[in-house]
Amino acid sequence: MHNSQFQSVIQALTACAASCDHCFDACLQEQDVKMMEGCIRLDRDCADICKLTASALARNSSEARSFLQACAEICKACGDECAKHAHMQHCQECAEACRRCEEACRSAVQA
Amino acid sequence: MHNSQFQSVIQALTACAASCDHCFDACLQEQDVKMMEGCIRLDRDCADICKLTASALARNSSEARSFLQACAEICKACGDECAKHAHMQHCQECAEACRRCEEACRSAVQA
Amino acid sequence: MHNSQFQSVIQALTACAASCDHCFDACLQEQDVKMMEGCIRLDRDCADICKLTASALARNSSEARSFLQACAEICKACGDECAKHAHMQHCQECAEACRRCEEACRSAVQA
Amino acid sequence: MHNSQFQSVIQALTACAASCDHCFDACLQEQDVKMMEGCIRLDRDCADICKLTASALARNSSEARSFLQACAEICKACGDECAKHAHMQHCQECAEACRRCEEACRSAVQA
Repeated sequence: MHNSQFQSVIQALTACAASCDHCFDACLQEQDVKMMEGCIRLDRDCADICKLTASALARNSSEARSFLQACAEICKACGDECAKHAHMQHCQECAEACRRCEEACRSAVQA
Repeated sequence: MHNSQFQSVIQALTACAASCDHCFDACLQEQDVKMMEGCIRLDRDCADICKLTASALARNSSEARSFLQACAEICKACGDECAKHAHMQHCQECAEACRRCEEACRSAVQA
Repeated sequence: MHNSQFQSVIQALTACAASCDHCFDACLQEQDVKMMEGCIRLDRDCADICKLTASALARNSSEARSFLQACAEICKACGDECAKHAHMQHCQECAEACRRCEEACRSAVQA
Repeated sequence: MHNSQFQSVIQALTACAASCDHCFDACLQEQDVKMMEGCIRLDRDCADICKLTASALARNSSEARSFLQACAEICKACGDECAKHAHMQHCQECAEACRRCEEACRSAVQA
């Protein structure tokens, strides 16, 4: 697997990490932070694994598959949680970024 | 799953990350660095995922299982590679730390 | 600078990261999460830089000084914030770990 | 400081991290890996702090200044090392990404 093949996955991972970091910040500014507990936790998990996976792909790691599988699972969990908050734009945007990233990771695993 | 249950896994993860970082440094000081290419790459992969997994466990992440599964796989790959360098103490120590960490991760997944 | 010289700093960094991750989890379980916003944010900043600095020291990075200086500043900020929550044990323990880590980092910079 | 003000810094940090990860991979594929030891080490230091700093900015961290200062110093060290390898395209590209990122970090500190 060569770096260039992963360019679009890396892009999805980077975008997802940025969305999760932004959502983390926005959730902590909400009036009812207690309600956002699950999002805050998963935003951190998801941003962390997305950045690690992007970095592993960028350096042609032999372990790309293991990173991608974990990343797909965690993106799914974060996207599902964010999707519950239908009236918050930051959560909806994050849910969408997570879905795209999950799909990109699953496609890359099968490639 | 509660933090205290994971204390021994966190310890194995932290020890493995430190061994991998030390092995990375020692491999780069070897005369024949080319021969150590696989170790250098896997030491980085393994240290990174071990630290991320330790942190996820320490904060009671709901995604512990995904982190642990990826971590077990990457510990196995790194341990196998390091084990090949039978005459290098840093590689033998790292291989041992990886094996212990892989086992700790697999036990925690089944718990 | 050799790995063994840094053993006690690495220990302080690892302990501080674990305290911050635990405090992050405990803050999110508090009834009044809004009041813990500052802690939650700084716990994440501090855990992240502590883990990165520990890893840089463990691999004998030439950039140890820059990592340590940033880490000392962020430990101070996190320790100050946690110290405000006098009735919460997780914050008091975290404040103490941050103080010890800040001091260890500052000593290592001057060494 | 608001997220949107940092968009261009985040972009420079993300591009620099990707260049460093790519350079790490390319250095390890060179015939004379021993000659690349400094690059390999600094590529890892630099990619790690760039990703951490980008994430801190994206979540509006109060500690942005400390992350940016460390990042600027480490980008300078990595850029200087890569610039020495004038006949290697991956090093020249990485040196350029490091320079741009160092400058972006220094500007952001003063903002």
